[in-house]
Amino acid sequence: MSYDLWYWPSIQGRGEFVRLFMAAADIKWRDRAREQDAQALMEDLEARKEAGFAPYAPPYLVDGDFAIAQVAHIVTWLTDRHDLGSGNMPDDLHLIQLQLDITDIVEEVHSVHHPVASSLYYDDQKDAAKQAAEKFRDERIPKYFDHFEQALGVKDGPFMLGERWSHVDTSLFQLVEGLRYAFPKCMSELMSEYPRIAACRNAVAEIDGVKTYLASDKRIDFNEDGIFRHYPELDAE
Amino acid sequence: MSYDLWYWPSIQGRGEFVRLFMAAADIKWRDRAREQDAQALMEDLEARKEAGFAPYAPPYLVDGDFAIAQVAHIVTWLTDRHDLGSGNMPDDLHLIQLQLDITDIVEEVHSVHHPVASSLYYDDQKDAAKQAAEKFRDERIPKYFDHFEQALGVKDGPFMLGERWSHVDTSLFQLVEGLRYAFPKCMSELMSEYPRIAACRNAVAEIDGVKTYLASDKRIDFNEDGIFRHYPELDAE
Repeated sequence: MSYDLWYWPSIQGRGEFVRLFMAAADIKWRDRAREQDAQALMEDLEARKEAGFAPYAPPYLVDGDFAIAQVAHIVTWLTDRHDLGSGNMPDDLHLIQLQLDITDIVEEVHSVHHPVASSLYYDDQKDAAKQAAEKFRDERIPKYFDHFEQALGVKDGPFMLGERWSHVDTSLFQLVEGLRYAFPKCMSELMSEYPRIAACRNAVAEIDGVKTYLASDKRIDFNEDGIFRHYPELDAE
Repeated sequence: MSYDLWYWPSIQGRGEFVRLFMAAADIKWRDRAREQDAQALMEDLEARKEAGFAPYAPPYLVDGDFAIAQVAHIVTWLTDRHDLGSGNMPDDLHLIQLQLDITDIVEEVHSVHHPVASSLYYDDQKDAAKQAAEKFRDERIPKYFDHFEQALGVKDGPFMLGERWSHVDTSLFQLVEGLRYAFPKCMSELMSEYPRIAACRNAVAEIDGVKTYLASDKRIDFNEDGIFRHYPELDAE
């Protein structure tokens, strides 16, 4: 079986969290807007809004008549559907919670370069972005990373569940990669303080499906239209 | 049975979405930090971080040894546990998705008055907040409200599922109340364009448990420490 993934064709963005999970789990998908274009995505979304309950925004995954949106919701649903859970309900619930914590920091990452409004140009909110970036680097990344580092210490690593990877690990990998791209100086100092996160990131990169995916042309490069953007003036000095 | 809810004692905040759902469903809870204080909350959270998987932040709900955090996650879990779902899996999944959309706009509401950093004073980011508020009122509220209005049209109202209320309706109620508090001028103009949202809001206010809750001293007043803050300069003219 294969799913249809709909997401903006030229960025990793939020779609990448879904892609990485599917790659790790060897779940097949078609990237519909990359086969066609952004216009096709907008038309598909519009048609869904006329037909019933519809995504607010991409990414969404389609299986037959059913479409599901919101990253944390999609990967949770796939985990259940493909029997990839831990088999332990409290652990599965904690994983969803951690995935939602990642959703929160990803939203904050975007707000760093667009603190005033996502519809304004970066250059028109650069001063606020510089202030936001300093606070984000000094306060928010460490606060979230302390949390993820603590969670990775619950089982005997390298993943949240121990030996077995989950949707939280693939998302944490993407978060680390994105932050390293956006804030290379800050992150090169910071990562040494988070050995479990670093080990988890490395272990995810070694999952067969992830390794193959990252080396393929399915992996779009980070760029300054996505969530994780490298503006040198927003990084540490 | 009764749950322990842990949340900051002096604001509605994100805890209120959980409270309203429990009030509507006649689920009992103790509001632990209101019985004690914020210090007790911080100590409880710290102890959980030493014991295993723990919330990143309040609100969280405790049942015996198990704690669950993240509003959308909590109300979804309660829905399942108390058999309050629709009985139809795709509908239940769409409800979770809509609840996560509400999570997103609630995060945006907070960022309006704290666009640069949540750790800075409002007065130190007032200019950015004014710009953010204009964009939020003109672009973001209508975009989300179009989405919720469309979703309410799928079944034959007043709730998302039709005659039966769900966690999405109680959260939508709180979103509308909060936005009306924060942006009264803007919202008094806007609501006439969203008759289904207005009808849903009114129907939620008439649910027995909600009505009793809103009239009780359990309902904290909106104030300028919460998510929805009334700063007249951020409202429409």
